[in-house]
Amino acid sequence: MKIHNFSAGPCILPETVLNDAAQAVSNFNGSGLSLVEISHRSPDFVAVMEEARTLTKELLNLPERFDVLFLQGGASLGFLTAAYNFLPEGGKAAYIDSGTWANKAVKEAKHLGGISVVGTSKASNYDHIPAADSAPAGSSYLHYTSNNTIFGTQFAGTPEASVPLIADMSSDIFSREFDANPFHLIYAGAQKNMGPAGTVMYAFDTEAAGKTGRSIPSYLDLQVHASKDSMFNTPSVFPVYVTMLTLRWIKSMGGVKAMEIRNAEKAGLIYAEIDRNPLFEGHAAIKSRSTMNATFRLIDDAHATAFDAMWEEAGVSGIKGHRSVGGYRASMYNALPKESVQVLIDVMKELERTA
Amino acid sequence: MKIHNFSAGPCILPETVLNDAAQAVSNFNGSGLSLVEISHRSPDFVAVMEEARTLTKELLNLPERFDVLFLQGGASLGFLTAAYNFLPEGGKAAYIDSGTWANKAVKEAKHLGGISVVGTSKASNYDHIPAADSAPAGSSYLHYTSNNTIFGTQFAGTPEASVPLIADMSSDIFSREFDANPFHLIYAGAQKNMGPAGTVMYAFDTEAAGKTGRSIPSYLDLQVHASKDSMFNTPSVFPVYVTMLTLRWIKSMGGVKAMEIRNAEKAGLIYAEIDRNPLFEGHAAIKSRSTMNATFRLIDDAHATAFDAMWEEAGVSGIKGHRSVGGYRASMYNALPKESVQVLIDVMKELERTA
Repeated sequence: MKIHNFSAGPCILPETVLNDAAQAVSNFNGSGLSLVEISHRSPDFVAVMEEARTLTKELLNLPERFDVLFLQGGASLGFLTAAYNFLPEGGKAAYIDSGTWANKAVKEAKHLGGISVVGTSKASNYDHIPAADSAPAGSSYLHYTSNNTIFGTQFAGTPEASVPLIADMSSDIFSREFDANPFHLIYAGAQKNMGPAGTVMYAFDTEAAGKTGRSIPSYLDLQVHASKDSMFNTPSVFPVYVTMLTLRWIKSMGGVKAMEIRNAEKAGLIYAEIDRNPLFEGHAAIKSRSTMNATFRLIDDAHATAFDAMWEEAGVSGIKGHRSVGGYRASMYNALPKESVQVLIDVMKELERTA
Repeated sequence: MKIHNFSAGPCILPETVLNDAAQAVSNFNGSGLSLVEISHRSPDFVAVMEEARTLTKELLNLPERFDVLFLQGGASLGFLTAAYNFLPEGGKAAYIDSGTWANKAVKEAKHLGGISVVGTSKASNYDHIPAADSAPAGSSYLHYTSNNTIFGTQFAGTPEASVPLIADMSSDIFSREFDANPFHLIYAGAQKNMGPAGTVMYAFDTEAAGKTGRSIPSYLDLQVHASKDSMFNTPSVFPVYVTMLTLRWIKSMGGVKAMEIRNAEKAGLIYAEIDRNPLFEGHAAIKSRSTMNATFRLIDDAHATAFDAMWEEAGVSGIKGHRSVGGYRASMYNALPKESVQVLIDVMKELERTA
């Protein structure tokens, strides 16, 4: 049976990417050796890392002054790395608290400076993207989380700010176009639109990084990694390789703009059904809805047993909502085909017909 | 042609492990989904993480008070993590400087306290394991690097010390038995004996960790990770899975003791040839020789062209020495069969015969 994989992350990747990844684990580039048993400094793997970095620059249309790294530790370590590289000793920064991960970013940055939360939607269980006050004078940057996987909310675009931006784009990177010029740093765990778990992408303004007066531990210093072409230490070889394959796939499909069109179409279909179908309601405020993660619930829980049996029967996987929201969550990352969304919609319609 | 993979790391893994890994990338546990596109919180992957942690405890015969984590960032981030969790605010620690990575560990720990280097072999290009002075009074621990991949040196056993030990065992973990009781922390990047690049193992004394008075950033706090069963954030799924498979393989082969016998035999063969063959000499002092990495060179470089052609012809791969030592390095991790060592020895003999 065809499985329709709506997992929130790690999540669906393109079938061709997974086929090539499995092949490389057996025999990489016809070398007779597995990708995972060769030196990361071998020419074949150095070429992989370079292609991943170059494709990121190209697909995101990054300004010349940006560099791209693939490191480890996920966005969770990124919260600390962001502050170490862009928050001066004794300085301050502004953060928008739009969800669980945004909140964690605040907590980690507080180890390094004075953090002002300039907007929060915590009181309403993060059901919308909050309006934000201006960053206080002297703030080095405004940090935000572009998409909130758990709550199904997303910034409609890049927020206006009088200071440089830093964004955790873990769950919507490569899903839509944006202008990187206002940013000092964009970082994103790979395990949604970019690849498997185990690597995190940093795209940063090399002219702005490291002007903090801090003595930065090496692994947390973006300039150290940049000076070693993202090979300061052994990178996570397989995750970086599969990320490179996924970036190639995005390019072959028409780039980020093509993904944006595809994602808008899928999101349009599912939200139309949530709004039309009398048995369901959405969690996120309409203007804050995410194209990546649609959160919704049954208005009457009495239908849950029937609905759960029906979508399982249809091959739908991974749509149980996060425990802090409940209900359902359909994650529709780049690689999810429109056909899968249609299958889920058909089940919702069928429930309405038979309930 | 059969390839004899002497790569220093990432390096050879058991063939059955690589076959199972490739299969899981295509279809994990018969689920119809790839290992890398399912949630890390799915029961199937939680079981993988638990098995990796449990097998580590069992194979290393760790005391009950130890916990095991599989995190990211390699030993390079481990240098910082070690100090954050075991070096009290205003405290001090002793380090043995036996190689490039040992030296880097010192550099990172200096961000957090007073570090005394109690022994170094830097002056002789780290060609031996240095004798060490006692740790200064008040030292919280003695840190050492059990095996030095670049130089081919290894501590003959666990050093004597009046304070608890911390060891970076990245390149000889699971290669020989040791008693974990004197340790506060053992950490090791996976990419030698344990699995592919992308995860790092921490085995630590839960009763000793975190008594530092420090406010520790979450990702660097071993107790935070332990409280979440090594799932504080998304782990590097594929590297952890392949590590678990490799630990299963070690167990099936008879455990760490069996590896130790196998490794001693392989090392015995290669060093005997280096010492016997008049064309070669070893780099490391005899008493400091590593069972994992044998460093050696041609006494007369005039033979290099012939030798290089001969070992390439024989399917030998990855024996070029590190740039800071030159010559050759035969890395003989757990998964390298004795047969491969014999092939290399035969080439060395053939060179002697024809030179």
